Amino acid sequence: MSYQPPVQDLMFCIEHLSHWETVSTLDAYSGFDLTDIDAALEGYARFCSEQIAPLSHIGDTLGAQFDNGRVKMPEGDAQAYAQFVEMGWQALTHPPEFGGMGLPRTVGAAAVEMLNAADMSFGLCPLLTDGAIEALLLTGSDEQKATYLEPLIAGRWSGTMNLTEPQAGSDLGRVSTKAVRRADGSYGVSGTKIFITYGAHDLTENIIHLVLARTPDAPAGPKGLSLFIVPQKMVAEDGSVGAENSVNCISIEHKLGVRASPTAVLEYKDATGFLIGEENRGLEYMFIMMNAARFSVGVQGIATSERAYQRALSYARDRVQSRPVNGQVKDAVAIIEHPDVRRMLMRMRSLTEGGRAMAAATAGLLDIAHHQDDPDMAALAEFMVPLVKGFCSERAVEVASLGVQIHGGMGFIEETGAAQHYRDSRILPIYEGTTAIQANDLLGRKVMRDEGETARRFAARITATEAELAKGDATAQAIGASLAQARNAFEAALEWLLENSRKDIDAAFAGSVPFLMLAGTLAAGWKLAKGVTPAQAALNDGQNTHFMTQKIATALFFAQHILPECSAEHARILHGARSLLDAAFPE
Amino acid sequence: MSYQPPVQDLMFCIEHLSHWETVSTLDAYSGFDLTDIDAALEGYARFCSEQIAPLSHIGDTLGAQFDNGRVKMPEGDAQAYAQFVEMGWQALTHPPEFGGMGLPRTVGAAAVEMLNAADMSFGLCPLLTDGAIEALLLTGSDEQKATYLEPLIAGRWSGTMNLTEPQAGSDLGRVSTKAVRRADGSYGVSGTKIFITYGAHDLTENIIHLVLARTPDAPAGPKGLSLFIVPQKMVAEDGSVGAENSVNCISIEHKLGVRASPTAVLEYKDATGFLIGEENRGLEYMFIMMNAARFSVGVQGIATSERAYQRALSYARDRVQSRPVNGQVKDAVAIIEHPDVRRMLMRMRSLTEGGRAMAAATAGLLDIAHHQDDPDMAALAEFMVPLVKGFCSERAVEVASLGVQIHGGMGFIEETGAAQHYRDSRILPIYEGTTAIQANDLLGRKVMRDEGETARRFAARITATEAELAKGDATAQAIGASLAQARNAFEAALEWLLENSRKDIDAAFAGSVPFLMLAGTLAAGWKLAKGVTPAQAALNDGQNTHFMTQKIATALFFAQHILPECSAEHARILHGARSLLDAAFPE
Repeated sequence: MSYQPPVQDLMFCIEHLSHWETVSTLDAYSGFDLTDIDAALEGYARFCSEQIAPLSHIGDTLGAQFDNGRVKMPEGDAQAYAQFVEMGWQALTHPPEFGGMGLPRTVGAAAVEMLNAADMSFGLCPLLTDGAIEALLLTGSDEQKATYLEPLIAGRWSGTMNLTEPQAGSDLGRVSTKAVRRADGSYGVSGTKIFITYGAHDLTENIIHLVLARTPDAPAGPKGLSLFIVPQKMVAEDGSVGAENSVNCISIEHKLGVRASPTAVLEYKDATGFLIGEENRGLEYMFIMMNAARFSVGVQGIATSERAYQRALSYARDRVQSRPVNGQVKDAVAIIEHPDVRRMLMRMRSLTEGGRAMAAATAGLLDIAHHQDDPDMAALAEFMVPLVKGFCSERAVEVASLGVQIHGGMGFIEETGAAQHYRDSRILPIYEGTTAIQANDLLGRKVMRDEGETARRFAARITATEAELAKGDATAQAIGASLAQARNAFEAALEWLLENSRKDIDAAFAGSVPFLMLAGTLAAGWKLAKGVTPAQAALNDGQNTHFMTQKIATALFFAQHILPECSAEHARILHGARSLLDAAFPE
Repeated sequence: MSYQPPVQDLMFCIEHLSHWETVSTLDAYSGFDLTDIDAALEGYARFCSEQIAPLSHIGDTLGAQFDNGRVKMPEGDAQAYAQFVEMGWQALTHPPEFGGMGLPRTVGAAAVEMLNAADMSFGLCPLLTDGAIEALLLTGSDEQKATYLEPLIAGRWSGTMNLTEPQAGSDLGRVSTKAVRRADGSYGVSGTKIFITYGAHDLTENIIHLVLARTPDAPAGPKGLSLFIVPQKMVAEDGSVGAENSVNCISIEHKLGVRASPTAVLEYKDATGFLIGEENRGLEYMFIMMNAARFSVGVQGIATSERAYQRALSYARDRVQSRPVNGQVKDAVAIIEHPDVRRMLMRMRSLTEGGRAMAAATAGLLDIAHHQDDPDMAALAEFMVPLVKGFCSERAVEVASLGVQIHGGMGFIEETGAAQHYRDSRILPIYEGTTAIQANDLLGRKVMRDEGETARRFAARITATEAELAKGDATAQAIGASLAQARNAFEAALEWLLENSRKDIDAAFAGSVPFLMLAGTLAAGWKLAKGVTPAQAALNDGQNTHFMTQKIATALFFAQHILPECSAEHARILHGARSLLDAAFPE
């Protein structure tokens, strides 16, 4: 099925929800206006829908194939990737001094969504390269930047993150890959890394692995990890690519989804690596770039949700089945006419647009935090990141499942395509930190550490939106009332968690994921609600009448169907800790 | 991973929740006591865990294969099926006069759960055969019964249900397969049927297809359908199997899950069929047996949930990762020690046991309704069936998804096995009537038709359980309080729906699935709550201390973590109809 990038909604989110009034005044971005951005997104949208979207089903069917140490990518990927490089899309948000276009992250988020909606397996390669670029920009030496950044930003080389080992998943302190310093200042890296996305493939002339490893005299646990650049092929002083390094792909995984994205087991045998920054600070560096990677995975959730929604909507329009329940028509009608199909479609749409609105707002905060010295904005951005990751990834699974359901029996047949989203989306709540890890990050680092200060500022901003909605029409007021109820649930849960974090830490963490989902649902509903006032203003001016009317309809549906879930999360947090902690399991 | 049938919990449900005090006094079943049943279940449990459970992963990997009009079943299936027949398990609940063992449906439900937990793909063959037996028992002529029942009940032949056609899924009125009466009284059946579970396979010497078709002068729509027996191979007067009928398997589907269960496209070309009952009453006959089939699909949901839970529990015990958040241990611990993993496990367990408790109660009602002339019991049983189907199938998807999540990255690797449950379970809310069809059945046939009378009796029974819990300890009282809140939400939603069914039918049906999920969640929570008093009594007697303590823990968790969802469903029903119906979709 074709993919129609939702450029109008992406632009709505940038203009009205991404703090554009501030982002556009930052020195780095003041050269761009909304017309430039619209043009850039339209260009990328065309590329994604025409060149990439057709690959998704083929790639899923063929999968990446492993043959004797080499990975062969599915048909069409090489050509599409070559086009991606030729058009320079990897450069979108990166600094001009290394060949980037320098667009803000607000725009980058929109681009990541479109590429991943077109084909999530394909989108993972640039996503990981972005991560490597970010790491080098933040922590690499000038020489390292000079060597690696230009080809990575051009997309000629790709990047990987090598964290996981069989015994070290969420618990990176258990990493045991060794790195031994050599006389020439390089390191010999030895060990086995698993789950390495695009760890081996044939799309680029080189692959730059970023590897967490441990020097011989490093302290045990997470504080003894260092970060290394290990190029798949050695790079000469003039930047040319030479002999293979000692990094071998042992196998790739047979996965539930994203089958065209090779997930490699990599064996390092005294491979040549180069230390990034200082020894034993590897995990700290990883955390710096983790926010960006986690945010992008959240955006992947929005992407698969949008694609699943478009597919279900198209099917619901075409499929004729049963007379309407109100008896007004005697013939069978398209199933989109049946109330429950509408309910499922609206649920898919409001979860998707809610995630998009929240992600746009967060991207704006990240842009501002990156370019202004404003610790409050930075704290708010960091508070939002696990919400984007947690909400959008968990909801993507739900949305994809609804997409299967709307297709009925056809949804269970692989050829239809709905099942692929159900399979693909399932990795999102797992990689780049599971939902529980996001929840620990939220509760531990971003709520308990500042004793709820940022969380309370988040709530206060919502209260301001409620006040604005109270001045609107009956619909705006109804949305505001639901929002207030959800925000009250959030605040009560917050205070309970803060109190218990001091006296019963297990009880507090028993509510960590419910709190993450409460906060994420609230944030998405808030941002949709915030869009009501500008949508109404546009309507009053007679602009984009259908689109703006439906923005308000989506916000109202979210307020009445999704926000009520916040009260269940509140109940779980306040009343459910002991029943959870005290239960025992049979041997 | 091995499967350990939960016989102790199945027996607890039969003894305390399935109305056993009445079922055991029915003439048909008064010959069985709980010791007999326990022995039968233990025997079947051994068969399922030893002979069937090992097939599940192999079957998923190999799948049923189509080759030139024939279906080849995965390795091991033929041998296991032969054993199934030899041990006579198909006969479990069927009447002794045709070779059955005559055990009640309460026991049958437990058996269906165990077989489907062991291997859902395998379990579908006997499940469909049960459906065909049921149809013949209820509507077949004496001659038809004499010809077909004994070999079906012995398991030597299998049965299928042929309803769906490409244009006729949920909307069976659109069935266009033709049946033309011949001079000898048989019919020539012609048409194409799709999604026929076990429509072709090599496990039995014959396959008995039950086919919905339309005679030439039949009225249009659902009232012109007749039901036919179409044997795959013709049956001689002496019962021997002869020449092939004109029914051909054109292809089988490439599906998301239950891959070892062949889903056939069958082409009928003037195939010889025999009318069941009278012409034009086919859909009515189908509805009689639909309750049984829908109930069984609900039980399949409990089955996959149990298997997914056992797999996740085992992984959570083995996988060591990260120190506990309370800092009491300095080393990494098994992940079952982490609060959020416990939360997910308890969620899986309580949803599974809640479904089992509800299914046991419903099976008992069906037994009583079948053997006693009690219209109130029959109405209550029929009210419960869509709840069992809707709740257990939707929750199975959720439970399987949690099972993947607990496995982290390993959950996404097919070899691990968790992903199979996530794929397999996804068909459950679709086949035998989608969740929306169950919800229409509940709201239209079982609530609106008697103006809420049965639904109010259902609520009154819950109130009685609340009163009983109020006499118990603090835990019992807490469970009772949550139950009362959920029951209040149900009653308010019920009255709103009844009122709107008269003045705004679209608004009522906009809330049909939320109402189904509200009622299903309430019913499961109720039955777990009802188990608290006998569990406490057993504890007071010092019996099965660990098991009984955990029955109460499960009920408490369900009350505090799952029942609060009822309030969100209530809000959707009462306040969400207009936002759903008024939304428009872009062209």
